[in-house]
Amino acid sequence: MPKLYWEDFKAGQVVDYGPRLVTAEEIKEFAAAFDPQPMHLDEEAARATMSGGLCASGWHTCSIMMRMIVDGFIFNSSSMGSPGVDEVRWLAPVRPGDHLTVRASVLETRSSNSRPDRGFAKFCFDMFNAAGIRVMTLTTPLIIGRREHGNVQR
Amino acid sequence: MPKLYWEDFKAGQVVDYGPRLVTAEEIKEFAAAFDPQPMHLDEEAARATMSGGLCASGWHTCSIMMRMIVDGFIFNSSSMGSPGVDEVRWLAPVRPGDHLTVRASVLETRSSNSRPDRGFAKFCFDMFNAAGIRVMTLTTPLIIGRREHGNVQR
Repeated sequence: MPKLYWEDFKAGQVVDYGPRLVTAEEIKEFAAAFDPQPMHLDEEAARATMSGGLCASGWHTCSIMMRMIVDGFIFNSSSMGSPGVDEVRWLAPVRPGDHLTVRASVLETRSSNSRPDRGFAKFCFDMFNAAGIRVMTLTTPLIIGRREHGNVQR
Repeated sequence: MPKLYWEDFKAGQVVDYGPRLVTAEEIKEFAAAFDPQPMHLDEEAARATMSGGLCASGWHTCSIMMRMIVDGFIFNSSSMGSPGVDEVRWLAPVRPGDHLTVRASVLETRSSNSRPDRGFAKFCFDMFNAAGIRVMTLTTPLIIGRREHGNVQR
C-alpha cells in the first residue's frame, strides 16, 4: 500500500474501518485503570445505574477508535499528530459483544501557511455498532506531511 | 465528605487534583493497546520522531485526567455522565516521570428545562506538569443530579 501524504486526502472522501469486537473483560479492565464508575466496572452494579448494564467508558470508546484509525490509515501516512479534538459526542452506549465500525470522512483540507512541509485535514469519525446505531461522533484536525517535501516523519 | 449534587457546583469554583506520576511503562502499555505509534511505544524509535522522545498518547492523557477527576469528585457526586466533550487541546508532550495535576474550573451551570431531577455544569479541566506547563485543556458539560430530588444515581 503506498504511503499516504497530505495530497492524498480530499474533502468528501469516506472510508470505513473495522469491525472491532468489544469484550466485557476489556471494558472492565479499562474502567479499573481510568474510569472506575459502576456502569463500566461490574455487570451487577451497572444494572442499577442509568445505563442499565455494563457499557464502555467514553474514553475507552475514543481509545478504541484511535486504534482503529491508526491501523486503518494513520500508521501508513505521514501524520504529524493532532492539536486536539474539536468535539466528541457519546450518542449511545457501547456494550460487551458490540462489533464497532468507524467511518472516516474528510471534511476539509488546507495547506499550512507557515510550514510548507505540511497541511491540515479535518476529519469526522463516526462510530457505529452492528445494528447501525451511531454510538459516537468525533471531529478532529490532523496535521499531515506533504509528499513533495519528502516528509517521512510521524 | 458529603455527597455533591448539582446545587454544590457554582461558576467560578476552582479545585486542583493530583499530582499523579506518569511512568514509561504505562505510556508504552497504553500505546500498545490503543495508539501504537513510535513516539508512544519505544524510547529509541521516539527519538527519531517530531516529539524527540517518548510521550503519552493524547488519549492516554485524557484517560489519566478522567481517573483523576473520578477520584477527585465524580465518584462522590450524583454525576449522571456527560454527552461528550466540547474541545480538547493537547498543548505540550506528557513525558515519563511527569507529575500531573488537574485544575477543574466550573465555567457555568444551568438547571435542565425538561428534567427537574438534574442540571448541567460545564467544566474546564486544565492539566499541568510539575514545571507548571499546561499540557492539556479540555471543556466538557457534566449532567449532575439535583439534591432536592434525592437523586442518587450515578
